[in-house]
Amino acid sequence: MSFRFEVLKTDPTGARLGRLETPHGVIETPAFMPVGTAATVKGMTQSALESLGVQILLSNTYHLYLRPGHELIRELGGLHSFMSWPHPILTDSGGYQVFSLADLRKVNDDGVTFRSHLDGSEHFLSSEKAMEIEVALGADIIMVLDECVEAAADFDRARAAALRTKAWAVRCQDFFAAQGDAARQMLFAIVQGGAHAVLRRESADALVELNFPGYAIGGLAVGEPHDITCEMVAQVTAQLPSDRPRYLMGVGHPEQIPDYVALGVDMMDCVLPTRNARNGCLFTSQGRLNIRNSRHARDERPLDASCGCAVCGRYSRAYLRHLFLSNEMLGGMLGTHHNIHFYLDLMRQIREAISFGKLDSFRFDLQARLAKGHSE
Amino acid sequence: MSFRFEVLKTDPTGARLGRLETPHGVIETPAFMPVGTAATVKGMTQSALESLGVQILLSNTYHLYLRPGHELIRELGGLHSFMSWPHPILTDSGGYQVFSLADLRKVNDDGVTFRSHLDGSEHFLSSEKAMEIEVALGADIIMVLDECVEAAADFDRARAAALRTKAWAVRCQDFFAAQGDAARQMLFAIVQGGAHAVLRRESADALVELNFPGYAIGGLAVGEPHDITCEMVAQVTAQLPSDRPRYLMGVGHPEQIPDYVALGVDMMDCVLPTRNARNGCLFTSQGRLNIRNSRHARDERPLDASCGCAVCGRYSRAYLRHLFLSNEMLGGMLGTHHNIHFYLDLMRQIREAISFGKLDSFRFDLQARLAKGHSE
Repeated sequence: MSFRFEVLKTDPTGARLGRLETPHGVIETPAFMPVGTAATVKGMTQSALESLGVQILLSNTYHLYLRPGHELIRELGGLHSFMSWPHPILTDSGGYQVFSLADLRKVNDDGVTFRSHLDGSEHFLSSEKAMEIEVALGADIIMVLDECVEAAADFDRARAAALRTKAWAVRCQDFFAAQGDAARQMLFAIVQGGAHAVLRRESADALVELNFPGYAIGGLAVGEPHDITCEMVAQVTAQLPSDRPRYLMGVGHPEQIPDYVALGVDMMDCVLPTRNARNGCLFTSQGRLNIRNSRHARDERPLDASCGCAVCGRYSRAYLRHLFLSNEMLGGMLGTHHNIHFYLDLMRQIREAISFGKLDSFRFDLQARLAKGHSE
Repeated sequence: MSFRFEVLKTDPTGARLGRLETPHGVIETPAFMPVGTAATVKGMTQSALESLGVQILLSNTYHLYLRPGHELIRELGGLHSFMSWPHPILTDSGGYQVFSLADLRKVNDDGVTFRSHLDGSEHFLSSEKAMEIEVALGADIIMVLDECVEAAADFDRARAAALRTKAWAVRCQDFFAAQGDAARQMLFAIVQGGAHAVLRRESADALVELNFPGYAIGGLAVGEPHDITCEMVAQVTAQLPSDRPRYLMGVGHPEQIPDYVALGVDMMDCVLPTRNARNGCLFTSQGRLNIRNSRHARDERPLDASCGCAVCGRYSRAYLRHLFLSNEMLGGMLGTHHNIHFYLDLMRQIREAISFGKLDSFRFDLQARLAKGHSE
């Protein structure tokens, strides 16, 4: 068996310290996955990601399907080989991106018809097609096609989407059993149900019955208040088997990550550290900082005196601000490097806190510290 | 004395192997200086430049004067400290950029009035002002203000500009003697004279009389044929003292660099490797290659199988092409890394060829190889 998930320790909060073995390496959990949408984390070399200790990247099926195409990537030996990242990769199913297209897509029980954001060409994504693409890409962890609804979706609409997601999960599982390779790829189901606790539980129960090797929680942190997100996550993790990894999709803010971990979440991904970095919003141990702000113009200090990253070791705030104001590539590059280091360091601290059974006090200190420094 | 220039060996062609000691380190000559316009080489970290063996960077006074301002850089300890580059730096005077503004500038004997390309604000650059800015920036090598003329400038116009350049050189020298620090910065004069051999000789003679520690050749490779450029360089280097470094500004194409070196040029700078890289034009030992070309779509080979750079060691042409077609930052980053490596490697080969007295045969082989491969 090429995959193995082990919970090494559980904290009083419910947080889990674990390790997930994959054919391309081990992922220590709780893990944060930087997003490499088009087979690249914007502004980072693969070597720099390795130097930061990134253990797993997320890449987007929708983007890779449109460009350069999954067939080309398969021909070139799969995504690991194509992007020269011999470490674990997770691909989403493309569903989330397609549903984000809003006016450009139409959904029915067989799948989603959508128009490419690149050239307007029409495409059809079924559960089988999503599997075919993800098998071709060859990521270690792949996701079923799911239907996402907006945060405010009412009960009936959220229920219909959750039922459809379940039906697609069955079809993905069947297709993968016939054409995929369970020793090479691990297929995760996705729990939906909007902001309705009963639907979240129903969705989780139905998918657990299908016996997936891992479970994701989708359609959250899409605009609803943080306590609702947490409530929904709690409803779901209570239903999930404790011996399978749990992946909360698309989160989150640094101060919220320990909340999700405390609810038993093992994996997360988010564009926040990378996208914010390119806009000059940088995370520090004292809260976030907008490096374009004029108060940094003559500041010779590093972004964060307590940060051990290469950027804080070498460059001043004044120089970083100059790079951002001049729209220089190096601004986004250094900002991204620092922000990814910040997230990975946060995850290391969280794992350490769990190992000591002290996540709750760590979380309290972190949230106090980050809230205090939020002066931009 | 903080500066020392030594010619170690002269090749039968006239090429010189040398070393230039500066307060921030030694430059082996002939040297190519990558361009870091706004105190950053676009798409490169300072560490990556160090790893490539870059010994000296060029930065542009015009850009730094406008943003973030030379006073700010002085306050922060000068350019080396500001950009965290503790190695040699050369700044131009801003003259070339200002003259490139065409409609936005007016020149008289006192200097140039110009409008900022950033906000349209009006500025005046005199020889004294250029010195003031360059002293504040604190580069190891600084340049006098000069007047550039277009390639087709007639005799009278080229002569007037060369005379004005000479007058400004005197004023720069006086200002620098009064306010600068010859142990910290080396002031180079600039030979002008357009495409007129007699003016080039006159300009060189007049500046040599002023006894500068180094001489640049400006206003060439601005559109005139390569053999005219070479003829003008030859006219100038014949007049220059052999114990001073010679810097040919703004060149050049890889296949032309040995021609300049054979004429006794010690230093060069050019945006070609960096700007071309961002457009997907990459240099290889077999000629240049447009990575966006569809013939690279499925090509698993590196850019250049005989290249030892980190990019060629890790990434395929297919992946690089994908990055460029997707407008991903990593495309420009990796392309720049490779192209700078190519130029620095070329300079290492040139220095080696000179040390063996074999520059002419090296040049012949190089030009044959690069010409043959020019298929894009």
